[in-house]
Amino acid sequence: MSTKTIDNLFHDSLKDIYYAEKKILKALPKMAKAAQSPKLAAAFEKHREETEGQIERLEQVFEIIGKRAQGKTCTAIDGILEEGADIMDEYKDTSALDAGLIASAQAVEHYEICRYGTLKRWAEVMGMKDAAKLLDETLQQESKTDEDLTTLADAKINDKALKAAA
Amino acid sequence: MSTKTIDNLFHDSLKDIYYAEKKILKALPKMAKAAQSPKLAAAFEKHREETEGQIERLEQVFEIIGKRAQGKTCTAIDGILEEGADIMDEYKDTSALDAGLIASAQAVEHYEICRYGTLKRWAEVMGMKDAAKLLDETLQQESKTDEDLTTLADAKINDKALKAAA
Repeated sequence: MSTKTIDNLFHDSLKDIYYAEKKILKALPKMAKAAQSPKLAAAFEKHREETEGQIERLEQVFEIIGKRAQGKTCTAIDGILEEGADIMDEYKDTSALDAGLIASAQAVEHYEICRYGTLKRWAEVMGMKDAAKLLDETLQQESKTDEDLTTLADAKINDKALKAAA
Repeated sequence: MSTKTIDNLFHDSLKDIYYAEKKILKALPKMAKAAQSPKLAAAFEKHREETEGQIERLEQVFEIIGKRAQGKTCTAIDGILEEGADIMDEYKDTSALDAGLIASAQAVEHYEICRYGTLKRWAEVMGMKDAAKLLDETLQQESKTDEDLTTLADAKINDKALKAAA
């Protein structure tokens, strides 16, 4: 019988999100470049900078649990980013591109929100207050990014896509 | 230059989530069977039933836009479910299994919450009130499922996983 515990689960999930963040860091400049709206491009650029800080925070959590910072292939984020790349390709030069980019970015954010929410909860259960605080800091940032993208979509992008469709 | 519009984006996303729901419908009985906690198994079974209704609602939305209900490979959900299957396999017979199952299920819920949130917003922008209402109904159900899973995790599963780890 396997002796795997919540410590293993925490470590595995940490490797999963560490891999994911590094992939996201590479994807964001492409999304910023593709965006038609300067405000959306700026939002992606801002989130790229935040992502660098989020990776550093994950490295601090690895240190807290005494493990080497290391990623592990995360098929979920690979799939989410692949769909985003398809949208960029299929909607290139169309009025719906930015609405599609926002939808893709929000799928990324929701994946992160979910994983950081779980990791924070596990850190709390395991009594790792410092780790929980670091994870919560990123969680708040991801939630704010998701909200900002909704605001941006409501304010401009969806209307623009609709007008062009009419 | 492509003439793709928000109508295409809406239709593409509808096909994406239709494929996803059908995959989730198949995955939930496996998750229910794997769960150690009877309460967790019951939650998965309840959500399987809800998923059937969600698929029917999507079919109604396809009807509203005058298109045939049809799925389109969604690499995101494939990746998310693949990670869930890995957890089921790697943590089989361990005290951390249920905590891992909940984390996997919440990744699925967050993907759905995000996609339904976007589809609902687009339906509103496009003036499709009936479609928006159907999509919102599912969105509320998914959010409730996510909250219930957190409650279940907080109440029992994480503590159980922790005690076994001590």
